[in-house]
Amino acid sequence: MKILKPTKMQFSPIKSLSTIIILYTLILLFSNTTMAQEKIQMVRLAKIKVDPLQLDKYNTALKEQMTTAVRVEPGVLTYYAVADKNDPSQITILEIYADTSAYKSHIETMHFKKYKETVKDMVQALELIDVNLIASAKKEGM
Amino acid sequence: MKILKPTKMQFSPIKSLSTIIILYTLILLFSNTTMAQEKIQMVRLAKIKVDPLQLDKYNTALKEQMTTAVRVEPGVLTYYAVADKNDPSQITILEIYADTSAYKSHIETMHFKKYKETVKDMVQALELIDVNLIASAKKEGM
Repeated sequence: MKILKPTKMQFSPIKSLSTIIILYTLILLFSNTTMAQEKIQMVRLAKIKVDPLQLDKYNTALKEQMTTAVRVEPGVLTYYAVADKNDPSQITILEIYADTSAYKSHIETMHFKKYKETVKDMVQALELIDVNLIASAKKEGM
Repeated sequence: MKILKPTKMQFSPIKSLSTIIILYTLILLFSNTTMAQEKIQMVRLAKIKVDPLQLDKYNTALKEQMTTAVRVEPGVLTYYAVADKNDPSQITILEIYADTSAYKSHIETMHFKKYKETVKDMVQALELIDVNLIASAKKEGM
């Protein structure tokens, strides 16, 4: 019968160095993941009060901005614009961008600048609320 | 050269009846279209203030309700739930149902009633705002 003797713990500079390198790599990997997560999706609610007398013109400009941005900008993912039934001049827009840099490029585009110029005398109040997406659920094709 | 004489306007009971029938049909058609449009999609914003100490539990119950409803109810189309970054206990949900009858069936389902029962002591304030969808734009697959 073979008896297994406990091996003596020995200090090995090579093993220690390997452990340090592995730990350091893991820390780097973890911090990259965290940074990546922080970069993922910028979500926002824009609350806009529009001059009721210019509402049709405003909605036309808004629709054009939304559809153009989603069509031509890779980082503009989703827009939903809704108007209060009791006061259609109270508008809320849910905006989802791939990340904050996608948003920063978005506001420098010609179509966004054109929209801002068109609506500057139509918008009576604007509130931008940064939000986190808790969850979304949609029927296929919606 | 031929001279066109103005024809004399004559009262014809048959012509008058035809005109009335045509007008009546047009009115009926128009009102049916209006009714159909009013029935299409019920869209709503729900603004919910949750007890901050029970926020994780609330979010879990909300996610379960949303995913179950979209999966099993044909008329529940879309949900987006977002939380203010500055105060995650301030939640806004964008809800889209196929029509008002889909919403009425929804609130009678077991999963919705279970959600309402679970969160009744977590929700500190609830505001429901009926809205119209002005427009939406989304990248394919979003």
